[in-house]
Amino acid sequence: MQRLQALANRSLAAGALNRHHNPLPVKALKLPFCAQTVRFKTHGFIDQSGLKRFSTAEATVASRDNGQVREKTLTMETLNPQVKAVEYAVRGPIVIKAGEIERGLQQGMKQPFTEVIKANIGDAQAMGQQPITFLRQVVALCTCPELLESPIFPEDAKIRARRILQGCGGHSIGSYSASQGVECIRQDVAAYVEQRDQGVPTNWDNIYLTTGASDGIMSILKLLVSGEGPSRTGVMIPIPQYPLYSAAIAELDAVQVNYYLDEENCWALDVNELHRALQEAKQYCNPRVLCIINPGNPTGQVQSRKCIEDVLHFAYEEKLFVMSDEVYQDNIYSPDCQFHSFKKVLYEMGPEHFNSVELASFHSTSKGYTGECGFRGGYMEVINLDPEVKAQLVKLLSVRLCPPVSGQAAMDVIVNPPNPGEPSFPQFLKEKTAVLGALAEKAKLTEQILNAVPGIKCNPVQGAMYAFPRIFIPPRAVEEAKVLGMSPDMLYCLRLLEETGICVVPGSGFGQKEGTYHFRMTILPSTEKLKLLLEKVQDFHVKFLKEYASLDEPLI
Amino acid sequence: MQRLQALANRSLAAGALNRHHNPLPVKALKLPFCAQTVRFKTHGFIDQSGLKRFSTAEATVASRDNGQVREKTLTMETLNPQVKAVEYAVRGPIVIKAGEIERGLQQGMKQPFTEVIKANIGDAQAMGQQPITFLRQVVALCTCPELLESPIFPEDAKIRARRILQGCGGHSIGSYSASQGVECIRQDVAAYVEQRDQGVPTNWDNIYLTTGASDGIMSILKLLVSGEGPSRTGVMIPIPQYPLYSAAIAELDAVQVNYYLDEENCWALDVNELHRALQEAKQYCNPRVLCIINPGNPTGQVQSRKCIEDVLHFAYEEKLFVMSDEVYQDNIYSPDCQFHSFKKVLYEMGPEHFNSVELASFHSTSKGYTGECGFRGGYMEVINLDPEVKAQLVKLLSVRLCPPVSGQAAMDVIVNPPNPGEPSFPQFLKEKTAVLGALAEKAKLTEQILNAVPGIKCNPVQGAMYAFPRIFIPPRAVEEAKVLGMSPDMLYCLRLLEETGICVVPGSGFGQKEGTYHFRMTILPSTEKLKLLLEKVQDFHVKFLKEYASLDEPLI
Repeated sequence: MQRLQALANRSLAAGALNRHHNPLPVKALKLPFCAQTVRFKTHGFIDQSGLKRFSTAEATVASRDNGQVREKTLTMETLNPQVKAVEYAVRGPIVIKAGEIERGLQQGMKQPFTEVIKANIGDAQAMGQQPITFLRQVVALCTCPELLESPIFPEDAKIRARRILQGCGGHSIGSYSASQGVECIRQDVAAYVEQRDQGVPTNWDNIYLTTGASDGIMSILKLLVSGEGPSRTGVMIPIPQYPLYSAAIAELDAVQVNYYLDEENCWALDVNELHRALQEAKQYCNPRVLCIINPGNPTGQVQSRKCIEDVLHFAYEEKLFVMSDEVYQDNIYSPDCQFHSFKKVLYEMGPEHFNSVELASFHSTSKGYTGECGFRGGYMEVINLDPEVKAQLVKLLSVRLCPPVSGQAAMDVIVNPPNPGEPSFPQFLKEKTAVLGALAEKAKLTEQILNAVPGIKCNPVQGAMYAFPRIFIPPRAVEEAKVLGMSPDMLYCLRLLEETGICVVPGSGFGQKEGTYHFRMTILPSTEKLKLLLEKVQDFHVKFLKEYASLDEPLI
Repeated sequence: MQRLQALANRSLAAGALNRHHNPLPVKALKLPFCAQTVRFKTHGFIDQSGLKRFSTAEATVASRDNGQVREKTLTMETLNPQVKAVEYAVRGPIVIKAGEIERGLQQGMKQPFTEVIKANIGDAQAMGQQPITFLRQVVALCTCPELLESPIFPEDAKIRARRILQGCGGHSIGSYSASQGVECIRQDVAAYVEQRDQGVPTNWDNIYLTTGASDGIMSILKLLVSGEGPSRTGVMIPIPQYPLYSAAIAELDAVQVNYYLDEENCWALDVNELHRALQEAKQYCNPRVLCIINPGNPTGQVQSRKCIEDVLHFAYEEKLFVMSDEVYQDNIYSPDCQFHSFKKVLYEMGPEHFNSVELASFHSTSKGYTGECGFRGGYMEVINLDPEVKAQLVKLLSVRLCPPVSGQAAMDVIVNPPNPGEPSFPQFLKEKTAVLGALAEKAKLTEQILNAVPGIKCNPVQGAMYAFPRIFIPPRAVEEAKVLGMSPDMLYCLRLLEETGICVVPGSGFGQKEGTYHFRMTILPSTEKLKLLLEKVQDFHVKFLKEYASLDEPLI
């Protein structure tokens, strides 16, 4: 108990987080895995970086005000309850804590490590990945057309830039584009999709450029949410999931319907589990939407063609609107795996299916081999959408005017990269191959090292950018977490962070089967740093097991 | 009646819009001015450009399908009713129609004009305004840091770019920034606000970078919406308003509470009218938010310091959360007017007010003298926000990861432009002065020419980018519009578009006092084109009046 108290004190002394236990999930029906997540209540104001700040103004005024406190208009009591229900672990409390520690280090605070390694988010360039030269050249040319006259950039980059500028109002990326995006970029996207899917017809009118994939996913979900009580829209999502989905569902007050991926079977999607989840959900909501993430985030699996066909047939029979998150389509590492787009499989299933299933698929500039997260570029393709609904979608998008045009330009380069024979092709190919090669190597490395640790089991990282290993947490540690009012994997990740400087996200933030524990880590650090990270995890885990071992229980 | 039919036929033959009358506003309580707006139902699918398109795939499959129609999952019946309720006139049906005509012209269709002039949206660069060189140089340098080594750009631009890159993860604008934005840019914004407001203390922790101002406005409104029935959040907005507000309120299912600006008094905001609107609203909702647009959009007025003080005192007394839309703060043309920020006035009212009123103010890269709409940059400053709510705001923003980083960089240049003595200063000053000088000239020109037309009355365009003239519409035209199921000013604007190629937005899309009619036009076209536009409006209006004149009524 003394040690418990010490840990609690240490956490509080660190100043970041005042944990308090919420014994019942706020929306038990909607967010069943919430029961395992922790709710944090900030202690005073903590900014993104984890430091408390007070403005001179506020400090001055507070003293002038002589301690009198006037009640605010906007408080936790009057806040939109849907906002309150939102959780987003990828940038959650553990990341805030990591920022705080990092800042402490910079200010000379002593820690048992010299740097914080942030493996919490798929942010390749923050981890040192270099941008694709050609992409940046095209965007710079669009930004400063005077560069078109300079010999500094190659001709093929200039051709791309001129085409994009030609499609912009006033030939400037400073103009709003159409709400759906610049027409010629949408045409380029359509050509890309058609080529990727070996000739499946693609209409650029079904292409909408977006502010990253998240924006597209949110827009489509927004259309689909309706009804009250038992007729409220249910949205089927995988567990584990990328928490954008649970956050969007909470924000839109839809009903989250979980289907569980099969961890024992390399996180495969079993159509029987979809049936189970659907039947159960029908008792309390109207399940209308099926979300798929392929390749998987956080789980890294790549779905087989057969599996996709089964899923699409299920959606066809059950009349579900399918949202396929395919942002990792270029991130396939396992030689046994191949990316199959949902659209292509649907097409191959014949016209009855291809003409029926309403399907939205999402892509992004942030992942793949470009990792251009900051540009907030992306697109979605929506097929079989009711024409009147399509007009409503355009109307909805038009309120936000347009996606960032430089992000649209970045998206254009991704779908229309240098071709063999063009001056930039050799360098482009070299850069692309290097990034994807390194990622494949790191995927293998991560799996191998993690699986060598007693008490950690990691499925192959077939694709995407993450490992989601299962970790054994000894019952005494589970107990301790309970006392501290946090999920056991949060305790684990917090200790990992505090003792090694490694920032990973607890599995409870993504959802997991009850009684199992995981964390998500990216495979994005450089090979050298990744090795260091994995060794530290290994040492930490062994120490953690020993520390919490009971005399009456074996280590694993 | 024959002419009516001809007009109706002509509109239908144009193929764009199948108008149908919705005699009762869908949300009469919330959107009182809706009664005057038209609802359009698209006839088949019409894209942004106004052309009907069918994909090869859809066409093929449709024929294979042998005419069988399977009911969609997502239809107008199952669509989110809040999405259905959204209206956004600035990119509404008239603009879709303009796109269609424009495309027809390009394809050689005969029209009584040779070009469509789009004066519907504040999109300066689409109208030919040139970007500020320095801004584009900095963003290009951030995009392609190899340019830092080239002599092509000046040293002060490089200093800005290096500072921004230093603040980015991995020193790349391709990384996600913190959810609130890049720290050093937030610091630059805070320094700018402090300087603009002559020393009013500003804490960069209260600064949030946004994806244009719209995104910030939507985020703050999202926090504020709660309650059911009579305790549902009421949001006070000016009428006329920029329709982002009504659209956001509809999307969030809040209650729109209208206060009317005083057209007879140059669109002034009378605090008595605020009292009236508030008292009435209290009977059916819980008014908690007061939105102000200053300088006004679409109305172009600039609020006096006295007026702002009155409004803030009202908000203080009534405990309203104030949202001040100040995106046109650099667009002041009338020599008698000056921009006063709500924050500065609040500060000058003393600590009791400055420490109490919760205030969010919004700025953008899209307006001012830069007109960088496509970058989707902006910021908001929020003061007196409850610390716990602040953490909730950051959490909400984090789900969308971050605003586009190149937009953040553009925002940085706007708040941190070249200083006297720096190499880029002379050119910067020249460009800025030229843009603002031209806008001031065009504001005057617009007001003068419009006021010379019988049946048009236009308040001075003191600021912003729009004229919102009141137009007399003869009773017979009002009758005809009724028969056609559209608002009279929609009929007017549609005829103006069809006969002259000029695209402006009907006043009903912004809200107006019942029985009055207006349109909003931008003052952004080049002086030459603007003169042409105004002459065409003049001719059209005179013709319109004659056409609809009754024998028993005078012309005005």
